Amino acid sequence: MTELDVRPEGDTRVAATALHSFATAVFAAEGLPAGRARAAAASLCHGDLVGMTSHGLANLTRIYLPLLASGRARRDARPRVLADRDASVLLDGDRGLGLWLAGEAMELAARRAARHGVGMVAVRNATHFGCAGHYAAMAAAQGMVGLVAANCGRQRLARPPHGRAPLLGTNPLSVAAPAGTHPPFLLDMSTTTAPTGKVREAARAGAAVPPGWLAGDDGEPVTDPAAFDRGEAHLTWLGAPGPAAVKGFGLGLMVEVLAGLIPGAGMGPAPDTGDGDRDDDVGFLVLAFAPAELRGPGAVERDADALFGGVLDCPPSAAGGTVSYPGWPEAEHEARCRRDGVPVPAALLRELDAVADERGLARLGAC
Amino acid sequence: MTELDVRPEGDTRVAATALHSFATAVFAAEGLPAGRARAAAASLCHGDLVGMTSHGLANLTRIYLPLLASGRARRDARPRVLADRDASVLLDGDRGLGLWLAGEAMELAARRAARHGVGMVAVRNATHFGCAGHYAAMAAAQGMVGLVAANCGRQRLARPPHGRAPLLGTNPLSVAAPAGTHPPFLLDMSTTTAPTGKVREAARAGAAVPPGWLAGDDGEPVTDPAAFDRGEAHLTWLGAPGPAAVKGFGLGLMVEVLAGLIPGAGMGPAPDTGDGDRDDDVGFLVLAFAPAELRGPGAVERDADALFGGVLDCPPSAAGGTVSYPGWPEAEHEARCRRDGVPVPAALLRELDAVADERGLARLGAC
Repeated sequence: MTELDVRPEGDTRVAATALHSFATAVFAAEGLPAGRARAAAASLCHGDLVGMTSHGLANLTRIYLPLLASGRARRDARPRVLADRDASVLLDGDRGLGLWLAGEAMELAARRAARHGVGMVAVRNATHFGCAGHYAAMAAAQGMVGLVAANCGRQRLARPPHGRAPLLGTNPLSVAAPAGTHPPFLLDMSTTTAPTGKVREAARAGAAVPPGWLAGDDGEPVTDPAAFDRGEAHLTWLGAPGPAAVKGFGLGLMVEVLAGLIPGAGMGPAPDTGDGDRDDDVGFLVLAFAPAELRGPGAVERDADALFGGVLDCPPSAAGGTVSYPGWPEAEHEARCRRDGVPVPAALLRELDAVADERGLARLGAC
Repeated sequence: MTELDVRPEGDTRVAATALHSFATAVFAAEGLPAGRARAAAASLCHGDLVGMTSHGLANLTRIYLPLLASGRARRDARPRVLADRDASVLLDGDRGLGLWLAGEAMELAARRAARHGVGMVAVRNATHFGCAGHYAAMAAAQGMVGLVAANCGRQRLARPPHGRAPLLGTNPLSVAAPAGTHPPFLLDMSTTTAPTGKVREAARAGAAVPPGWLAGDDGEPVTDPAAFDRGEAHLTWLGAPGPAAVKGFGLGLMVEVLAGLIPGAGMGPAPDTGDGDRDDDVGFLVLAFAPAELRGPGAVERDADALFGGVLDCPPSAAGGTVSYPGWPEAEHEARCRRDGVPVPAALLRELDAVADERGLARLGAC
């Protein structure tokens, strides 16, 4: 028995680089080519690094390994250009792993934006991509603004206002922008009040969810997260309860239009085709905006610095709390993780140990 | 005294075409060239036609005539192309009336999208444009998807979560898409829970606003809409109260990035320049997506029909109510108005009578 067999309860801190190497080795063992394995691993680790643990390594055994094992995601996918108008491209993702494919789409969109001021890549026939923010942030790292929308294929999780049947997925939206000397702006949100990943994370932890995340058939709040997978509660839209939920529903439909209708992917309200799982044929829309191509060098960085610096300079309310913007707490979290290691809960570490053992890979070690 | 001098209390129904002709005549009397006057009038009437009365003719005397009278909006504006990358264009709006300028921007974006699959027009130095949805809908009318974002120049109305000082405007966002045989999808929303126009409309009507639209310094809900202009209550973000407000704030910042940072317009958090009013130098971002250029003819219309038809087919919940999507109730309202006339409240009609009298124009008549 090595010391690795005795895992402490609580969190183990793992070096960020070790976590990435581990995830890369797992994807490579699943038959992904090396570059794809590295890219997919970086996308997955993003969740843990920025504190969106519901969308990080915890999904390796829940989403990605089953997708690959069943062939619903293809390790050797060969995405195909269906149409290319230079500023815009339509891709068939050939069921490539979203964790890899979405980054390819953003890199392509950014190259086109560098020529045209705006670049758009629409992808159909894709699979689950984890945190939308990872791909939007790629544009911000190049001084561009990135926008990523994904639908959930033909999945039906959330109901329209006044409706009895679920129709749409959690339909994430992410926008990232440079912020001058400050950490990049990075909005990464489901258009439902909370994403399924956070509901299931709470269910695994045996914790209640805040009132407002889930509602029962009668519209009343449900705080037991396990009620969701029992079919006794459904996700609410941002703005619920009350009439503002129509805005959250509208944003969910906006994402369905951008990420489903534009590329021609599966869509929640569309009739069942009997062809594969309802969450197959996910669609993405990836946009890169290159304002420096229109405004010249320097101006965007200067204005972005003033915009986000102005937010950070806002005095706190009497009740206290830190004023920041989406992306700022995530950057702090990532910096802590890179310095002190990424906290991996004991239950997750045991899962990852089993993943390693099954593939003859080295287990993760504490840093 | 003509019969027009005796206005009934309650609503007067005015023919939609008469309302448009009236508003056109007013703008022409203010010195706008004929084409601009017609376009601005159509934008203004859109609010009344779709039932967003807080953003319709009520704003003629409150926003647009004062903007023109003070010279803060220029009747003879000569917008200038600052950069043209073909798929994307940067315009200086030369303080043109937003009601006219935003439509020009969308028409230009749609022409570019027809060539490139996507077209983007970023505008700085613009003015208040009323309903964002009017311009997004122009793209949908051409079978395209339209997205319109506008910031509010350097206006500061809503506070960041945990912050004491207001930093951003209501930052509207609109997306429109064709819906096959159904009325177009048309999301038109402020990223705050409610826009200022609706708060002031309630204040004029002496009505309370729903809890959640406004909050006091202590974060508690305020339902007296007059408290907003007394500085005793501020607008909340979509998702408030509770942690989901950070998503609404993030969406507000997303609009600030798209509509302020990309074109280089005034921005809320930026320092005061002492140059003009804080709500001058409004920025827009107008995007047209032409999926048919990527997917070929017919496919988008067919899929859009299935998407929005699927929403309309959703069975209602036990509590009842109509299931639809943003744009559907608005299209119903517009059809009723075009058939039966546009309801104009007595107080508004008296204002418009005064506007007509001051300019020697014919007053509006009932239909």
